[in-house]
Amino acid sequence: MALSELDRGRTTPPASNLDALFRPASVVVVGASNERTKIGGRLLSHLLRYGYTGRLYVVHPSDPAVQGVAAYRSVDELPADSALDLAIVAVPAVRVPETIRSLAHRGVRVAVIVSSGFGETGDAGRALEDEVRDCARRSGMRVLGPNCQGVANTSVGLAASFSSVFGRTEEVPDGTTAVISQSGAMAAVLTELSSGHVDGVRYWAATGNELDLTVADLVAEVATDPGVRVVQVYLENMRAADRLVQAARTAHERGAAVLVLKAGASEEGARAASSHTGALAQEDKVVDAFLSRHGLVRARDARQMSELARLFAGRKKPRGNRVGIVTNSGGLGVLLADEAAVNGLAMAEFGPDTRTRLTETLPPFAATANPIDVTAQLLSRPELLGAAIRAVEAEPGVDVVVVALGILGDYYDLDRILADVVELDRRTEKLVVVCWVAGDAAMPGRLAGAGIPTYDDTAATMRALGAFVAHARHVERERRADPQTSVPTARLTGPLPRAAGGPLSEAAGKRLLRSWGLPVVDGRLAVSADEAAAAARELGFPVVLKVSAAGLAHKTELGLVDVGIGDEAELRAAAARMLAATEANVHGDGQVDGLLVEPCLDGGLEMSVGLLRDPSVGNVVVVGAGGTAAEVLADVQLLIPPLTTELVREAIHRLRVAPLLHGFRGAPARDVDSLVRLVLDLATTPAVLAGQVASLDLNPVLVMPSGQGSVAVDVALTPGHPTSDIKEGR
Amino acid sequence: MALSELDRGRTTPPASNLDALFRPASVVVVGASNERTKIGGRLLSHLLRYGYTGRLYVVHPSDPAVQGVAAYRSVDELPADSALDLAIVAVPAVRVPETIRSLAHRGVRVAVIVSSGFGETGDAGRALEDEVRDCARRSGMRVLGPNCQGVANTSVGLAASFSSVFGRTEEVPDGTTAVISQSGAMAAVLTELSSGHVDGVRYWAATGNELDLTVADLVAEVATDPGVRVVQVYLENMRAADRLVQAARTAHERGAAVLVLKAGASEEGARAASSHTGALAQEDKVVDAFLSRHGLVRARDARQMSELARLFAGRKKPRGNRVGIVTNSGGLGVLLADEAAVNGLAMAEFGPDTRTRLTETLPPFAATANPIDVTAQLLSRPELLGAAIRAVEAEPGVDVVVVALGILGDYYDLDRILADVVELDRRTEKLVVVCWVAGDAAMPGRLAGAGIPTYDDTAATMRALGAFVAHARHVERERRADPQTSVPTARLTGPLPRAAGGPLSEAAGKRLLRSWGLPVVDGRLAVSADEAAAAARELGFPVVLKVSAAGLAHKTELGLVDVGIGDEAELRAAAARMLAATEANVHGDGQVDGLLVEPCLDGGLEMSVGLLRDPSVGNVVVVGAGGTAAEVLADVQLLIPPLTTELVREAIHRLRVAPLLHGFRGAPARDVDSLVRLVLDLATTPAVLAGQVASLDLNPVLVMPSGQGSVAVDVALTPGHPTSDIKEGR
Repeated sequence: MALSELDRGRTTPPASNLDALFRPASVVVVGASNERTKIGGRLLSHLLRYGYTGRLYVVHPSDPAVQGVAAYRSVDELPADSALDLAIVAVPAVRVPETIRSLAHRGVRVAVIVSSGFGETGDAGRALEDEVRDCARRSGMRVLGPNCQGVANTSVGLAASFSSVFGRTEEVPDGTTAVISQSGAMAAVLTELSSGHVDGVRYWAATGNELDLTVADLVAEVATDPGVRVVQVYLENMRAADRLVQAARTAHERGAAVLVLKAGASEEGARAASSHTGALAQEDKVVDAFLSRHGLVRARDARQMSELARLFAGRKKPRGNRVGIVTNSGGLGVLLADEAAVNGLAMAEFGPDTRTRLTETLPPFAATANPIDVTAQLLSRPELLGAAIRAVEAEPGVDVVVVALGILGDYYDLDRILADVVELDRRTEKLVVVCWVAGDAAMPGRLAGAGIPTYDDTAATMRALGAFVAHARHVERERRADPQTSVPTARLTGPLPRAAGGPLSEAAGKRLLRSWGLPVVDGRLAVSADEAAAAARELGFPVVLKVSAAGLAHKTELGLVDVGIGDEAELRAAAARMLAATEANVHGDGQVDGLLVEPCLDGGLEMSVGLLRDPSVGNVVVVGAGGTAAEVLADVQLLIPPLTTELVREAIHRLRVAPLLHGFRGAPARDVDSLVRLVLDLATTPAVLAGQVASLDLNPVLVMPSGQGSVAVDVALTPGHPTSDIKEGR
Repeated sequence: MALSELDRGRTTPPASNLDALFRPASVVVVGASNERTKIGGRLLSHLLRYGYTGRLYVVHPSDPAVQGVAAYRSVDELPADSALDLAIVAVPAVRVPETIRSLAHRGVRVAVIVSSGFGETGDAGRALEDEVRDCARRSGMRVLGPNCQGVANTSVGLAASFSSVFGRTEEVPDGTTAVISQSGAMAAVLTELSSGHVDGVRYWAATGNELDLTVADLVAEVATDPGVRVVQVYLENMRAADRLVQAARTAHERGAAVLVLKAGASEEGARAASSHTGALAQEDKVVDAFLSRHGLVRARDARQMSELARLFAGRKKPRGNRVGIVTNSGGLGVLLADEAAVNGLAMAEFGPDTRTRLTETLPPFAATANPIDVTAQLLSRPELLGAAIRAVEAEPGVDVVVVALGILGDYYDLDRILADVVELDRRTEKLVVVCWVAGDAAMPGRLAGAGIPTYDDTAATMRALGAFVAHARHVERERRADPQTSVPTARLTGPLPRAAGGPLSEAAGKRLLRSWGLPVVDGRLAVSADEAAAAARELGFPVVLKVSAAGLAHKTELGLVDVGIGDEAELRAAAARMLAATEANVHGDGQVDGLLVEPCLDGGLEMSVGLLRDPSVGNVVVVGAGGTAAEVLADVQLLIPPLTTELVREAIHRLRVAPLLHGFRGAPARDVDSLVRLVLDLATTPAVLAGQVASLDLNPVLVMPSGQGSVAVDVALTPGHPTSDIKEGR
């Protein structure tokens, strides 16, 4: 299903209850082993180590017991009176289908297939997957995997995974975060990197080939747990984008967040992802716009993800974006200030009270503006940090306190510094963050252990803070918003006219847009020079003449457009020339529907509005600079419905050409409202919501002076498969 | 001095010999103390600890010995027969001038003033600095500081600094790097962060207020040491940019590099820097263009600097940009591939031999394309990594081998993995880099200790590699290049006409440009409507009419320009209107020099060329999109002379509008050669080289179809102070 259904307010039913995956009353391991170098051996040892408290069964063809657990020789021999929630399958790939059949027969609710040798190896493996899928569908059993590293819920002692993260010396503690990943290794990496920075990981899953259950399904499930504050997600493709959106909304309602590390952003990365998890190439700009639209916070790599997680896992939310910095190094202060604006943060301006207090407390060569530099005097006067901190804490213009300390080691009173920062954090509702650079190696752990988000460089500190503040704003805005979902939504339309693999003729495209109520230039379709001349007289010279034909692109290059035709003689000559050029260039019966005669419009600023349909995200609306150079300038913003006036207005404002709309160098201010309305109307057109438009390009859209509207002058509309087709296609 | 002098091939004499600073035969510490919490105490203890082997004197007003060193009561009482190279001054600020006088009297060659309380505290401090500067100038003594943390050269056991980095448990070892910084804390941070990743730090200095010696002076000095491969620089302002360029060239000739962390990039950062080191605000785009032009590698923060340093400190240079990746995690492989193109790297294509070798060696579900994923099978089959590594090593299409290992801990044969990577690095001349993510915590140190550049995330790995490859290309290109320095350079010109604080009149500006041989639209200056009409007849209608006046900007908005005047009547009307508007809008005697009559030119693509003079960097040439929207689109590239055809051509190619120059959508290809020539000619114009042009804006420059040249249509030229004035101004 694509998002357009969400747009219309029809939401899909939630993924079938995944209690049996994350909170099973019973688990059976098929393919358990006594050898801990084997996957089935490690997995069972992790289950035992984490003290799973439900009923645990083991199936082994010959051994009477595996790792001390009494074994059954086959699934069929398992006690008949026992309901089975979760099965872990670790047998060779070729034996998986028969195993799944017997598990389905026993009424198992979810099977996790950790075995490899399926779709990732080629056609034979894909056939095995099909067999498993068919059997599962018939029985209603859900499947995680194959080729996955399993699942865990540390709050119930479930570690049904062979990942080495569950074999390391210290157990993974229960906590406020979850890790859901397409890749098992990346799930382990994310768990390790946030270890010590967050309290622990409650839910953990790696989905592998996603024969049935996807990352989105599992995120949607764990997002409902009030104990979870952060879900860390690793993705190589965007299956079930709608469920991810639901999950994010659920999380946001509870004050939680979903962080996404989406790999395959570049062409090279997408190629690598395709061989890793079979991900389809997808425009990364669309992914970015989609994630940003729904408040899914994107990380660029695993380290950034860990840097985000430690902030989002905390109990505090930012109250605003104004940062006050206290440092012992002017250099660190400058570097942090450099990163402020880049990351949407503001350097707080201190009021006179704060400045007076700082001047009275700090040494004469300390900087008392923001950032406050207590200087190397901190060495002999350890009280300076606390004094500076208290001043910033009391300053009403500060939302976030950043304590940036460089190179503090042996000579310094580290216990006192720790106490100063921790007490500050307890006293104030302001967010407190530490940037600890190149000092005592144990301090970051001590600070993090006391619940203070701690970073080891300046760029990382401000980048994470910026994302945190932006997310809080997004959530706040969504709470207030009245997005188009609430617009009374539309009857389904009949099928669109179809073109053979290309855009409709310009006349047909324009007719359709007019019928949707969108502003399109007036015009007449003529089938002879006489008709064209009559039309021109009616419209008034000068006029534009163009050939209208289905599947026709690059009209200008082919000489099939003529602008500024001043009189009838000129018009007749142009018509004759165009008809000849059409015969030479346009092939196929019935494609040409005539000559379009339109008035020449003056005084509009050329912008463009477009639409494209992404296979996973659904409709993507594009607004940007227009005219022939638009493609070259690539000055566009992508918008993901549902839209609001505010979202569209802000997107237009982000365009580089935005100043031209606001009356640049004596030119008139433009009717931006009408452009915003055009974009909103397009996005809520029933045929668009129904996924019937594969792509649409309005370029130029002439934006007239204020109060005079906008009008689309050129239209290229390519009909697409409606949503239900797309659904089948995936 | 600004760079323009370099442009002309006149180089300044090198900074006076700084041997006495870095390799003194004798050191005297004035203000040494027995108390190690005091600056003078720590500094002496570091000197003693590092085992300085020259003659060491201590001055103390009362104690007969300080930290075991016999003390003299004053500078004057120091043994008269002993030549003194270096003095460290750690007395209170008010006593510094008298101390400096006695040191100068004794013929001390360099004084390092570590005391604070100078320019950074206000006017009284600045007066003290002036006193010190005067005394030093008269005697020829060089001064480092004040308000600085001192100097070190570990190769001779000199640690004349109170920085805590010299007090930490392990001594800073001698090695192939140097750290030169305006901030003492940042010097310590950079030293700490590269510790363990590079062999050691030979030269170390913090320059503080830079009363005399600047960072650039010291970098130029240490760059001459053949034992130094990397100089890490922290800067908040760009004093003596020319010397930094010299230093970079010296380094490059020896296969070494200068890395720069320049803080104060944003407005907020610049404000903070100004209160930290008194840095002047400077356009960061200029700084970026300058650093990039001269192969000074920029880091964004201290962590990035350390990531760069570990690569540049190694003995290998990259042979090309094609990366081959071996990993145990498909996810890490995808993330690395994502970063390749962003950082100017290419994913190597494997030949058939390599693919065959990989298919034969690796398990069936391993990925044998680039990146090679040996999968979690590495656990039970430790030989897989070595096999994959050997295949990539043998592949001629690979320049750089990246080994990316995630989450390798207890279960893995880490010794074997280390040995495999280290042996690879010894065997091959290809660059070998490890990305070690979230695995055994000791391995990065073991790898780095064996000389393998090791990173802890995917983005950092590729970012550092990209900078390393780009730098190697820069050095190679500079070796080949025939920059304009070798153009027979020009006689000095007489003074330019002066305008009162603004641009010359358009007619005067155009006359000047024509006299320099630059292509400017033809035109006539008329002082009456009759003269204008005569000029128009001569040039042929249609014409452009504009008012020419000194100090006049925004002509179009004021109605002082009229284009496309078709006949004489229109011209006379326009002239009358303009003269009236001029009277209303242009004030001041003698500013208006007449009406400019010029032909209307058709068929040119609007571009722009400009010049601005930066107080530290000198001339900055700007090339970009033109026309009225140019300012809005901000599609410009900055070029720092000396220029080459290749540099200008590449800059134009990087513009977003570049495709328009190459014949977009049936439009003709443009005469790019003539645009390149215009830029080169402008940059080598004697008046420009002499710094006589403060700013110049040619917009539009019409770039005609191929072979038909380019021509500047509008000219705004503001004369500036010649170089010598600027010198005084700093």
